[in-house]
Amino acid sequence: MSRKQRAVLFLFSLALVLGVAAVAQKSGSQSVEERAIRAADAQWSQAAAAKDLAKTLSFYADDAVILAPGVPVAAGREAIRAVWVGEFKDPAYALSWSTQAVEVSRSRDLAYSRGSYDATYTRAVSPFEQNRPVREHGKYLAVWKKAPGGAWRVTVDMYNPDAPATPIKR
Amino acid sequence: MSRKQRAVLFLFSLALVLGVAAVAQKSGSQSVEERAIRAADAQWSQAAAAKDLAKTLSFYADDAVILAPGVPVAAGREAIRAVWVGEFKDPAYALSWSTQAVEVSRSRDLAYSRGSYDATYTRAVSPFEQNRPVREHGKYLAVWKKAPGGAWRVTVDMYNPDAPATPIKR
Repeated sequence: MSRKQRAVLFLFSLALVLGVAAVAQKSGSQSVEERAIRAADAQWSQAAAAKDLAKTLSFYADDAVILAPGVPVAAGREAIRAVWVGEFKDPAYALSWSTQAVEVSRSRDLAYSRGSYDATYTRAVSPFEQNRPVREHGKYLAVWKKAPGGAWRVTVDMYNPDAPATPIKR
Repeated sequence: MSRKQRAVLFLFSLALVLGVAAVAQKSGSQSVEERAIRAADAQWSQAAAAKDLAKTLSFYADDAVILAPGVPVAAGREAIRAVWVGEFKDPAYALSWSTQAVEVSRSRDLAYSRGSYDATYTRAVSPFEQNRPVREHGKYLAVWKKAPGGAWRVTVDMYNPDAPATPIKR
């Protein structure tokens, strides 16, 4: 090979390696982060289903807000704790959710997950009925931020029902 | 100055310039993107208030979803158009919102805005009352993605009320 041929071959190889590395980094680590968020979302749902208050709260960032239907914004650790303490007190409480979609920013510091939930809780269905257990199916949207230690934490937690809650038949 | 002194001065100046540039880029362009999203959110609200269907729809990404309370997910252009056509048909329709918080990923490809809205619309408040205009105050969360052309587009649009809608006094 001439010197020129070797130079061309070298540059070609370099471009190939850099190209492959860029693609691997983009798809590979994107899906690592997506998997991390899907795993966290599932663990969070399990903690909530088990009424594990400390673990449920551990998924929130310090500056998190809950945007729940029918009540104003719950902002910060104390308000968020009060929301979950209230939920877990309800004898009819049951909750689980499953992730449908996740998107992560290229810089891997911001992401969202969305999906659907199934809940049961005690509610007055109308002013003409007594409080009774109801079932609700709905959807949620969670915004996640990468915490300083590298873990994903929820900074906005929002949900709403797909239809009015319905009384549970007994 | 000796050659060594000049070299040290050069390296010091270089570090200073790079440091200033990094800080300027971080705070400056982050706030440029935040301002862009706040401006888009405000223009979007104005388009919705003016019942400008084409302009209202133009803020959504192709793969956008609306997560509205009381109904299932509306996914994609046609479903989103149908939502807004329905809203604008209502003679009691009025809507505006204002941004409270915006966060943008470092890579400036993903962001969210959240804030509060005021709406009026026609609804049966209970099975024992006729359809009538009601007023609703609530909160929203919008996830924005940078479109190929550089504009920010909404990919998830979610809201829920702070309290049940109340009949408008006449």
